[in-house]
Amino acid sequence: MSQSIVEELEPLINPRSVAVIGATNNWNKWGFSTFASTLNGFEGEVYPVNSKESEIMGHKAFARVTDIPAPVDLAVFVIPAASVPAVMEDCVAKGVKASVIISAGFAETGEKGKKLQDEVLRIARKGGIRFIGPNCMGYWSASSKLRAFMFPMPVKDGPLAFVSQGGNVGGAIVMSGYQRGVGFHRYVSCGCTADIQIEDYIEHFGEDPEVKVILTYIEGVSDGERFLEKVKKVTPKKPVIALKGGKTAAAAKAVTSHSGALAGSDEAYDAAFRSVGVIRVDSPEELLDVALGFLTQPLPKGRNVAILTPGGSYGVLCADACALEGLNVIELPDKTIALLDKVFPPRWSHGNPVDPAGDRNFISYMTAPLKLLRVEEVDSLIFMGFGGFSIFASMFLSADSASLESVASWMPSQARFQELAPVFTRVLGSKDAVKISRIIHPVISMAASMIGVQDEEEIAELVELIASAIAAGRIDPSFFIAPPKSGDSRATLRKGALKEMTSVEAIERFLAALAEQWVANYNKPVITTTFAEGQPRLLGSHYAYPSGRQAARVLIKLVEYKEYLEKAGMHRG
Amino acid sequence: MSQSIVEELEPLINPRSVAVIGATNNWNKWGFSTFASTLNGFEGEVYPVNSKESEIMGHKAFARVTDIPAPVDLAVFVIPAASVPAVMEDCVAKGVKASVIISAGFAETGEKGKKLQDEVLRIARKGGIRFIGPNCMGYWSASSKLRAFMFPMPVKDGPLAFVSQGGNVGGAIVMSGYQRGVGFHRYVSCGCTADIQIEDYIEHFGEDPEVKVILTYIEGVSDGERFLEKVKKVTPKKPVIALKGGKTAAAAKAVTSHSGALAGSDEAYDAAFRSVGVIRVDSPEELLDVALGFLTQPLPKGRNVAILTPGGSYGVLCADACALEGLNVIELPDKTIALLDKVFPPRWSHGNPVDPAGDRNFISYMTAPLKLLRVEEVDSLIFMGFGGFSIFASMFLSADSASLESVASWMPSQARFQELAPVFTRVLGSKDAVKISRIIHPVISMAASMIGVQDEEEIAELVELIASAIAAGRIDPSFFIAPPKSGDSRATLRKGALKEMTSVEAIERFLAALAEQWVANYNKPVITTTFAEGQPRLLGSHYAYPSGRQAARVLIKLVEYKEYLEKAGMHRG
Repeated sequence: MSQSIVEELEPLINPRSVAVIGATNNWNKWGFSTFASTLNGFEGEVYPVNSKESEIMGHKAFARVTDIPAPVDLAVFVIPAASVPAVMEDCVAKGVKASVIISAGFAETGEKGKKLQDEVLRIARKGGIRFIGPNCMGYWSASSKLRAFMFPMPVKDGPLAFVSQGGNVGGAIVMSGYQRGVGFHRYVSCGCTADIQIEDYIEHFGEDPEVKVILTYIEGVSDGERFLEKVKKVTPKKPVIALKGGKTAAAAKAVTSHSGALAGSDEAYDAAFRSVGVIRVDSPEELLDVALGFLTQPLPKGRNVAILTPGGSYGVLCADACALEGLNVIELPDKTIALLDKVFPPRWSHGNPVDPAGDRNFISYMTAPLKLLRVEEVDSLIFMGFGGFSIFASMFLSADSASLESVASWMPSQARFQELAPVFTRVLGSKDAVKISRIIHPVISMAASMIGVQDEEEIAELVELIASAIAAGRIDPSFFIAPPKSGDSRATLRKGALKEMTSVEAIERFLAALAEQWVANYNKPVITTTFAEGQPRLLGSHYAYPSGRQAARVLIKLVEYKEYLEKAGMHRG
Repeated sequence: MSQSIVEELEPLINPRSVAVIGATNNWNKWGFSTFASTLNGFEGEVYPVNSKESEIMGHKAFARVTDIPAPVDLAVFVIPAASVPAVMEDCVAKGVKASVIISAGFAETGEKGKKLQDEVLRIARKGGIRFIGPNCMGYWSASSKLRAFMFPMPVKDGPLAFVSQGGNVGGAIVMSGYQRGVGFHRYVSCGCTADIQIEDYIEHFGEDPEVKVILTYIEGVSDGERFLEKVKKVTPKKPVIALKGGKTAAAAKAVTSHSGALAGSDEAYDAAFRSVGVIRVDSPEELLDVALGFLTQPLPKGRNVAILTPGGSYGVLCADACALEGLNVIELPDKTIALLDKVFPPRWSHGNPVDPAGDRNFISYMTAPLKLLRVEEVDSLIFMGFGGFSIFASMFLSADSASLESVASWMPSQARFQELAPVFTRVLGSKDAVKISRIIHPVISMAASMIGVQDEEEIAELVELIASAIAAGRIDPSFFIAPPKSGDSRATLRKGALKEMTSVEAIERFLAALAEQWVANYNKPVITTTFAEGQPRLLGSHYAYPSGRQAARVLIKLVEYKEYLEKAGMHRG
């Protein structure tokens, strides 16, 4: 069965040639933007089909699909609904193998449209043509670089796969992903799902090793039992995250006129999703937030969470959010309190959330996560105020700020630096964390002494952590070896390194690398949040959320998935 | 009483001279960043006080406040808690009138700290010194351009006033406001509220005519009755929006160690807020979202809402959100359906949400809001997909895109344009909507004919709307009179107009101006939403929300405030 869905959808996923039926030079028609989008990046042949135009955007146009003097794997329909059946007959005659029907005016418009849709389905079935839609906005297949969209839309390849029963919601999520820095291996706007059903796409994504997390926006499924049967086989392999539109009576009518689906009872959907381990979210943004959580974090052992915050009020709101979601903001063991007491000022919160209450000791802050993650009962850590640390950036960066030049004064002179540079480059470029530690220890020590930290243990811990992150390739060595003045030696060292960043970007990447190192060392989720609003970004393979509330929402979904897998006897690391 | 709070806080709000106690040249101390922030922009004298440094950032430092050879209105404390009482005695001796105690280590740390705080209060009371804090992050007063913050933070003047029991949450909101384009007349991080209470600030903001909307983040109030008594007198005059931290037991302990407050029962706060018309929100972002709603929208008559969406799935999710919030997604009258039937393609949704189902008729889309707002039963409109219309931008803009030059072909030649330009400039710069209509009618007609619109009524409606918006100063005339090629005449016309924008920005401003015109014509809220994620911005005096869910959340708060005013017999236009 699984084998068969992969085979069946192959002509859709990897067509060698495409006909765009309704392609046009008239910029105010969807056939214009669909043809432009399909041309963009696709490596096979693209043929415009239009009986009234002879050439479209420089491509010879054909009056009918059957006129095309070469095989056509895929037909994209952007013509009025009424013309679709006749052209589908042409496609059958031509030997087209698959199609996507963007055209609207089918089941979503009522009984008459439904009949037209059934007619199209009958013809396609007869010719063995599987199709997406009708009444959809097209699809993207990374393996063939095919953007058969209604309008050009930025999309990049990546580990997600997404089937959406709404083209606008789907498109917005794909574009948000692009902005956030995460891509899609497949994206399908599935429309009225006359032929291929939502569960078929999910089954297909489940079989695809390139796909790590599956997303879906659903307004209503045609056959609930079939849906559950298929999806149940996918969820043990990879997370399936669903957003359901049409929870309320107010929206149910809109659902029918939009996708032709029946919204159904929300309680029934909720129970059904739960029974097969589908993770349900509440908004389009959250669909992506949670997907990024699954992509970048391990599954937590349980519901216990520790919170580290640079500000009390953020800790308060995050603790509220965690508790409301069903996470357990645990009491910290006395010995952990004692350890933190050693490094934080007396006014620190002495509990979870851990709030150093305005301490400016960056070293302690960077080692506190280790102290929390080492606690057996702590299953996850929320590390808040990520972006806010940019105020400390200059400490670690060879900033242009003259007042901070002394940070690098352990490097006696520019001449001496040039002499030592090749040694540093070689060592920092190696995978030997012990050797790297020796090189970076003086930098960290200097920074620590500047802020008055004398705790050798703290310094050693941070050195070890950073050295491991450099050895693992998470931190760019140039962060540590660039001298305080710009010059040739710096340029040399930066060769092949990252492009110049602002100090805020650099400190964000540095913290992201540390967060990834914590995850690597302890195999527990470390969810970070920024200080303020703004576009959280994927930094390396780490993702920072905008707020503690979003962090808590994501964490509970990881927990629930883990609990589902355990209950179903499918424990996954 | 109200007179008295204004008088009492005057030395805080408009000090003529400030002493920063604990100012230092050591960049890793809060006294460094506090002094830098206080210097920035304040027009009075700023004196650093430090017994160990003789000059700080170029300013002569004084060992004690009493050494300053001039009057000091305000003292900013950034010294260890234990030293505060003695220095407060100095302040009393010096005749200081007000102070802000940033120093932490008071009531929030337990019994010992509480005693210290009481001692400081006793000394200040004795000397008639009112003070903010302790354990706070400082404050901003627009009237004296005073940024007595713990670290430099971007803030601008504006119609909001905000008292926050959390400096981090508060600071993040102030900075988000800055990014979104909305400012604060006052912002106070109130800390442990030893002296001035949250309700005192709210009372003060209530008396200030510059303040239009009041925001507050509360962890716990000291005297519930006093709070309600004071706030009850403010809510009939202007909205008070509150975020409460410490809903759950998990956060209650964090509240005490953070602000020294008792979180109290969440149900009790909820009921209390409700009883005095305080509008409660759920997150820091929403505090600002709702404040912007109050600033930019009229209060709706009731709960009935119409939704206009460029995509079905967005409409579905928005209808869900509205229904879940208690708004009424009403059925449209038959005659409105009939009117929309005339201009939308047959596949449109035929109901509320109104979804033209991929229609590319920009003219109809821009006039549909009028058809909905004219319906007596429609109290508010949610207009979705604001940003998405940028795909139509080129239609209205004299874009550089060569393919669209013909848009302006009603202007026979560049020479002819230069001849007519002064006439256009004069007419479009006038306040006469009828004359303006005559000038812009050909542009709109041309655009309409390009997209195949023949409906004269639609065109006339849009012309009238745009002409009114130009006459009211909402739309920049250069939008209509710039010729297709850049050149001198264009530069002349743009003189004094907005700086060059991208086409997306221009269309956003254009739509924002239309939305404001709809509000002006019908005195009903028109909440717009963007298509995808991103930073919504204040455009002119219009604000676009990121999603239908946020729009619904804001709208219900406007409704609830209106209902409170009505119930309390204080109907407000």
